[in-house]
Amino acid sequence: MSTVPTLHWIGDIQGHLRLIDQTRLPVELIEIDCRDVETVWEAIKTLRVRGAPAIGVAAAYGVCIGVQSVIASGETPFFEQLRKTADRLASSRPTAVNLFWAIERMKQAAERLRGRPTPEIAATLLAEARAIHEEDRQMCRAIGRHGAELLRDGQGVLTHCNAGGLATSDYGTALAVFFAAAESGKTLHVYADETRPLLQGARLTAWELQQRGIDVTLICDNMAAQVMREGRVQAVVTGADRIAANGDSANKIGTYGVAVLAAAHKIPFYIAAPSSTFDLSIQSGREIPIEQRDPREVTHGFGRQTAPDGVAVYNPAFDVTPAELIAGIICERGVIRPVNREAIAAMLG
Amino acid sequence: MSTVPTLHWIGDIQGHLRLIDQTRLPVELIEIDCRDVETVWEAIKTLRVRGAPAIGVAAAYGVCIGVQSVIASGETPFFEQLRKTADRLASSRPTAVNLFWAIERMKQAAERLRGRPTPEIAATLLAEARAIHEEDRQMCRAIGRHGAELLRDGQGVLTHCNAGGLATSDYGTALAVFFAAAESGKTLHVYADETRPLLQGARLTAWELQQRGIDVTLICDNMAAQVMREGRVQAVVTGADRIAANGDSANKIGTYGVAVLAAAHKIPFYIAAPSSTFDLSIQSGREIPIEQRDPREVTHGFGRQTAPDGVAVYNPAFDVTPAELIAGIICERGVIRPVNREAIAAMLG
Repeated sequence: MSTVPTLHWIGDIQGHLRLIDQTRLPVELIEIDCRDVETVWEAIKTLRVRGAPAIGVAAAYGVCIGVQSVIASGETPFFEQLRKTADRLASSRPTAVNLFWAIERMKQAAERLRGRPTPEIAATLLAEARAIHEEDRQMCRAIGRHGAELLRDGQGVLTHCNAGGLATSDYGTALAVFFAAAESGKTLHVYADETRPLLQGARLTAWELQQRGIDVTLICDNMAAQVMREGRVQAVVTGADRIAANGDSANKIGTYGVAVLAAAHKIPFYIAAPSSTFDLSIQSGREIPIEQRDPREVTHGFGRQTAPDGVAVYNPAFDVTPAELIAGIICERGVIRPVNREAIAAMLG
Repeated sequence: MSTVPTLHWIGDIQGHLRLIDQTRLPVELIEIDCRDVETVWEAIKTLRVRGAPAIGVAAAYGVCIGVQSVIASGETPFFEQLRKTADRLASSRPTAVNLFWAIERMKQAAERLRGRPTPEIAATLLAEARAIHEEDRQMCRAIGRHGAELLRDGQGVLTHCNAGGLATSDYGTALAVFFAAAESGKTLHVYADETRPLLQGARLTAWELQQRGIDVTLICDNMAAQVMREGRVQAVVTGADRIAANGDSANKIGTYGVAVLAAAHKIPFYIAAPSSTFDLSIQSGREIPIEQRDPREVTHGFGRQTAPDGVAVYNPAFDVTPAELIAGIICERGVIRPVNREAIAAMLG
């Protein structure tokens, strides 16, 4: 599969991070080279790179960039610079759990080598970043493999938002299923919801599928019901942001509606997400608060005002699809189905 | 209710048509004065005035404007000018049935007076245009009255697209229900789907409700399910473009999905439409072909490209909601319920 990677490291220990500037998609495919921590910080901050796994990988490589200038300076300056770099990168997206997790993992990798020569520590940091990157890639591939078995050659499938390679190291979660099915020789017809208000489906999902040569048709969100009614899709696959112990799944706003429509048309609705998405401390979706986003995403979404001044707007960031509407949860360990507390505990335990 | 009328005639037989330029909404409320046929033609052509009833009324007044210069010229030049005006106006929106109906009615009103003095014919034409206008107004008011009885004080209601006063002489069909409920002292909380791709809900419905002081909250189409799940709406009311003999109703794309979601949440879904919307020659919705619209409405919605070059787009103009999902059809004669062939025949017969 010869597509441009979402992000990758170029060169050796003195190398740099190259990533797709996702703010320029889908009109232009521009890569930017990050040779200093500020460029990495800015790329995360301004969503040039986005998606929890991709942000984590970018930050891990950012730590490697941060220590490049102090490799020959001895332990104290090295760890001081490491700490500063880590703090700076952690401030780029203060709510991104994966970002903190990746940075913490990098710090611990260095701490374990305290007392060893700093060039060795720097080499270990790059190896750790590469490991985070590779683990994410393997996780996506495993999700793809398990999910692809659920789909048959010639089927139509529908997805919502972007759970694709742009949000991860290369392959995505929901889209990984389609990529893996295509690699195994199955032809799929993918319908991509544009996903208002931010249009991740139109801007990113349609672009990714097109890049990989998969048949994709873009629709407005309110067309999904008609597409189902006409018998154009036989399965729905979306990602998830957070999954409760009972299987209730929070994901981009609109996912719940798609799940209800799929049920009404007797079409199986699947979630594809890594096992790290489960939060077993949450018993059910009722415990997940629904965050409201800026009304201007709805009223000024396309660079132009499309609603009257001062109109009230309801703009929930996500919704929760109850477990009973989910035919299966595809994770890197396999497919959880039926979706219930016991099956989830068995797969994750 | 002191709002700016969608369109109205100013002055006597030498007067003119004033209408809201709907292409400037919701950012600016601009009225334009049509003092010649070309201005009326252009207003219809470029959607400054839109909606079947409103277009019919505009064209009827346009006929009056067309003959103003020949009132004193004798019968032959008068009827020649009438014919030219009618032909010109009919070419403005070649698929608008109501446009042809109104123009034909104006021509027949003149024909009936052949042999009478042309000033008398001109006066009759203005009276006929005013009658078309007034009949539409009364029809809307009647729909509003019947529909308002279905709603209770304090309820939340959801609507899709714009079946409002901007599409008719003043009051609309679906929105007439909300306006009449408000006039009878009921407080409603209206949720307006923005209605991609052309955003009639955001641009027009939100504006109209705001103008009339009705509590309105704008949502993206994919948020309707969540709004229902949270118990925020107790009824859905939309318009219809065409209703088959069995009650299957064609309306703006997305209406069918809203009806499915309403059923899943046990919320009654109503259609509000004049009896002229029924096409009893059509036995069921299966006979209604679904027209596809320009892909650029989806990919370049608001002056900016939001999807990759060359992506396939599915952009049906409307969908068909099956009768079994419709709790009632509100027309000017009353509420048809349950919605089936017999009840429709009884109400229209």
